[in-house]
Amino acid sequence: MPLKQKLMTPGPTPVPPAVLAALAQPVVHHRTAEFRELLRRCLDRLAEVHRTEEPILLFGASGTGAMEGAVANLLSPGDRVLVVSAGNFGERWLKLTEAYGADVVPLRLEWGETPTADDVEAALADAGGAKAVFLTHSETSTGVVADVDAIAARIADSGAVTVVDAISSLGAVPLDTDAAGLDVVVSGSQKALMTPPGLATTAVSARALAASADARSPRFYFDWRATLDKLDGDAPTTPFTTPVSLVYGLDAALGLLLEEGLEAVFDRHVRLGRACRAGVKAMGLELFSPDEDRSAVVTAIRMPEGVDGADAIRIVRERHGITLEGGRGPLVGKIVRIGHIGYVDVFDVAAALTALEQAVAELGGEVERGAAASAALEAYGGEAVHA
Amino acid sequence: MPLKQKLMTPGPTPVPPAVLAALAQPVVHHRTAEFRELLRRCLDRLAEVHRTEEPILLFGASGTGAMEGAVANLLSPGDRVLVVSAGNFGERWLKLTEAYGADVVPLRLEWGETPTADDVEAALADAGGAKAVFLTHSETSTGVVADVDAIAARIADSGAVTVVDAISSLGAVPLDTDAAGLDVVVSGSQKALMTPPGLATTAVSARALAASADARSPRFYFDWRATLDKLDGDAPTTPFTTPVSLVYGLDAALGLLLEEGLEAVFDRHVRLGRACRAGVKAMGLELFSPDEDRSAVVTAIRMPEGVDGADAIRIVRERHGITLEGGRGPLVGKIVRIGHIGYVDVFDVAAALTALEQAVAELGGEVERGAAASAALEAYGGEAVHA
Repeated sequence: MPLKQKLMTPGPTPVPPAVLAALAQPVVHHRTAEFRELLRRCLDRLAEVHRTEEPILLFGASGTGAMEGAVANLLSPGDRVLVVSAGNFGERWLKLTEAYGADVVPLRLEWGETPTADDVEAALADAGGAKAVFLTHSETSTGVVADVDAIAARIADSGAVTVVDAISSLGAVPLDTDAAGLDVVVSGSQKALMTPPGLATTAVSARALAASADARSPRFYFDWRATLDKLDGDAPTTPFTTPVSLVYGLDAALGLLLEEGLEAVFDRHVRLGRACRAGVKAMGLELFSPDEDRSAVVTAIRMPEGVDGADAIRIVRERHGITLEGGRGPLVGKIVRIGHIGYVDVFDVAAALTALEQAVAELGGEVERGAAASAALEAYGGEAVHA
Repeated sequence: MPLKQKLMTPGPTPVPPAVLAALAQPVVHHRTAEFRELLRRCLDRLAEVHRTEEPILLFGASGTGAMEGAVANLLSPGDRVLVVSAGNFGERWLKLTEAYGADVVPLRLEWGETPTADDVEAALADAGGAKAVFLTHSETSTGVVADVDAIAARIADSGAVTVVDAISSLGAVPLDTDAAGLDVVVSGSQKALMTPPGLATTAVSARALAASADARSPRFYFDWRATLDKLDGDAPTTPFTTPVSLVYGLDAALGLLLEEGLEAVFDRHVRLGRACRAGVKAMGLELFSPDEDRSAVVTAIRMPEGVDGADAIRIVRERHGITLEGGRGPLVGKIVRIGHIGYVDVFDVAAALTALEQAVAELGGEVERGAAASAALEAYGGEAVHA
């Protein structure tokens, strides 16, 4: 038997069998009434997950495509913007805004730090006249989830548009698009939405749309206006050919997510995060990501002295079929990341922890053996079940 | 029983069951050795279909995304370009090059005309100093397939880069990327490559890559250099998350295509085109697309006086589950298009013809009844089979 594969990265994530089966349906044409009905339902479900009344735009792309779309639709060359970066995906906003010739004011924190509302408010005042602020909700390279609600509240009065990368957080961590005044929220299918990669979404507020009207950056495939014009009414479509198979999958996945209920889903993610952190602590390793409930997307674990994270990841993957992720940028080799979003249960987390424990021990790292899995189960909690 | 669906449009096209099954495999991470091996094979197979030694770049997008990529990677604002347009997809090149601020010289032909090498050579001389020429191999809005080999031969000496939209032709009609000197060839998964929509490809010559080095248009998701840098060697990957499920599908589809053999595939498409045209003529309707073997992608049929193509399409779809396409732009209502690329056999064509015949008759159009299907089978040909 080939190794059973466990995908424990913060994206792509494991896809439920019902979603995989939905992908295998015969392809329908994207201009038919049948597909328009599917798309309508899928967009409505996405809006429910976003907690927004604003339109959701769907693109055939990875999340980075929708990030580029946000930059291209909002900015003209020379526009001043504030970019908050404390990891790999904050750096992506920096590269993107620079590629489009913006006058970029970076607010760079150490990788692993959590940006605060005070940080952003001060930087915004210093920057002066920023047209937009680019934020990362869940920085998957470090495991930090920022309090974007609190941050957005400080941006609101400045007149700047708030743009949030919620690619790995949407559907895992609460996100109140409208209530928090998040003007642009970008996400992707392959994270907590439990769908294969290839679809990206963008929620756009009326304010953001107005700001985009005079933006002069060239855009076509990711053009908001063109996409919005095709969404009208009960029979929406897309300006270009949609990845219909992936939309089948996304619709099925959103159905599962909403059937469980958003609050239950968020609660499950909080408990999975607790379980993972409890396991890490039980084996005597140090957490790199914050030890807080909001950090419910990915847990980053500092490797003990003398252990290269890449070696641990290789062992875990080759021996047990479990895929984990390493560090990026300044964290290469120093951390191992366990993703726990989407179609993940506590035994997936326990398996990852136990396999990592074995690998670290084998590589000569100091680690407590045998305690992680049961610590994870205890921290996960749940009602006591008696016969 | 629900109606059996027959997707007879020039994209998306019917997907073989083996390809649908491949989509439903569990998702693997795009940075693993397993995925890199899959990607390597898939890119090699694409190169074989393109008949090129040049690298193939893969993007998670529809074909339009890769078209935009060609424009963004090649051009700076103000660059002079020649755009040949004789239909909806030629118009797309025009819109794209205009969106990027190029100095666009259009060579506009009537929708349905076939651009010739003489046309292009003369327009190129008039334009003076064009950096690139944008062509459409198969103009699916009209059914015309241009002789891009002959056209490219006249462009070569001018120093301009030849850019070809081969979205609906690749894998249906011969395309000799290297031999014909096609610098940039853009295609998509959902046409003759028999895969659901969501993947786009770009073959880039060394000359095109050199031309892109100093192009100043902003680009990120579709950046050639960034994509190419990840392709190196035996273990390629992509700069951003790949739609891995669609790559599984594309690899399976390319396997089927190459197993049949490129020449056999092209021959089948020629015969499907002949079959479709013979059927149209047998029912006494007029061809809008050229009556020639090269026109093997889609057959456009002029509706008789008093018949709106949209009505015929609706009847065929609602009664028989067959999806055809109508006219676009100036051809709305005037033509009906039957696609016959990819996973299509002569009975699919015969079914579409027979259903269309019935619908046209019902709408009061003059049409010969009962002759189309057998005429199609006769024209399709094949060896005589005796017991």
